[in-house]
Amino acid sequence: MPAPIDFYFDFSSPYGFLASEKIEALAARHGRDVSWRPMLLGVVFKQTGAAPLTQIPLKGEYSRRDMVRSARFHGIDGFRMPSTFPIATQAPARIVLWLQIKEPSMTSKVVHAQYRAFFVAVAARCGVDAVAARAAIDDLEIKDALKKSNEQAIAAGAFGSPFIVVDGEPFWGMDRLDQVDRWLETGGW
Amino acid sequence: MPAPIDFYFDFSSPYGFLASEKIEALAARHGRDVSWRPMLLGVVFKQTGAAPLTQIPLKGEYSRRDMVRSARFHGIDGFRMPSTFPIATQAPARIVLWLQIKEPSMTSKVVHAQYRAFFVAVAARCGVDAVAARAAIDDLEIKDALKKSNEQAIAAGAFGSPFIVVDGEPFWGMDRLDQVDRWLETGGW
Repeated sequence: MPAPIDFYFDFSSPYGFLASEKIEALAARHGRDVSWRPMLLGVVFKQTGAAPLTQIPLKGEYSRRDMVRSARFHGIDGFRMPSTFPIATQAPARIVLWLQIKEPSMTSKVVHAQYRAFFVAVAARCGVDAVAARAAIDDLEIKDALKKSNEQAIAAGAFGSPFIVVDGEPFWGMDRLDQVDRWLETGGW
Repeated sequence: MPAPIDFYFDFSSPYGFLASEKIEALAARHGRDVSWRPMLLGVVFKQTGAAPLTQIPLKGEYSRRDMVRSARFHGIDGFRMPSTFPIATQAPARIVLWLQIKEPSMTSKVVHAQYRAFFVAVAARCGVDAVAARAAIDDLEIKDALKKSNEQAIAAGAFGSPFIVVDGEPFWGMDRLDQVDRWLETGGW
């Protein structure tokens, strides 16, 4: 099987959530897996001077409307903007990195469950050992894994979420899924 | 014929250029005209604290790559980023507003010619009276028309370019042409 698609995302990112609901089916159409790469946008934003989209004058109000409309456009049910936004996402990011070490086959299911818990009205259960997961959040090895994951994201040029890398070619945003699709089909243009 | 689509744009905006090459055919498929609404992003950016995309760390480098790739993706020939960027766009904006008063049927042709002159390697000629056009740039009535055009853009919520309004529904960016298309088809979802 060819290399997986790198999917960089922050669990607080609405467009990251929307893309996470689509990326696996897209990748599978081209015989690819998705490599889930949680990152912390707060760290990146310090470097770029960016702010959470919803806090920017004019753009913020528009983006809240656009997120809901885009969810419906792409047929993603139940999307709603959380009343508290953005949130710190170290904990869910560390749980993903912990699973990638301890139980990789659960990773995808847990990514979706954690994202849906934040952005979809009714949260899903996903069958992970809750006590072990809670312990993993404060495990030094896992904390270090998240630091490294974030450094890799920045090294890959990921300044936003979602940020998708296909065979070295970077694509930013839910809006680029159509180009990701064609790139996988054609290898570039 | 139903109301035209409002197309807000800055002549210095690369994604505005790409969208300008597509919007009329899209509108025509739904029996609509395009109302060209030149604006000055510099004025808007003062209000939102935004900066030209290409000047933002990480995002800037990505955007230059994405613009060229997106032009090819959408089949827009000859696109290249100008060596001087961004530029002041009062002059081409005023010429559009002057034509909308003096010779409306020329507007669309001149929008494309002016945009292509900046973003496409070989500029097109478009048959406007060059002396009259030059005079119009400094005409007080036309200067005032641009101020009003910009105020209207801000009132419509246009914080970027392109910004498209369909029957009161705002869409930001080249990336939303697919949603504009479906909105025109269905009247919303």
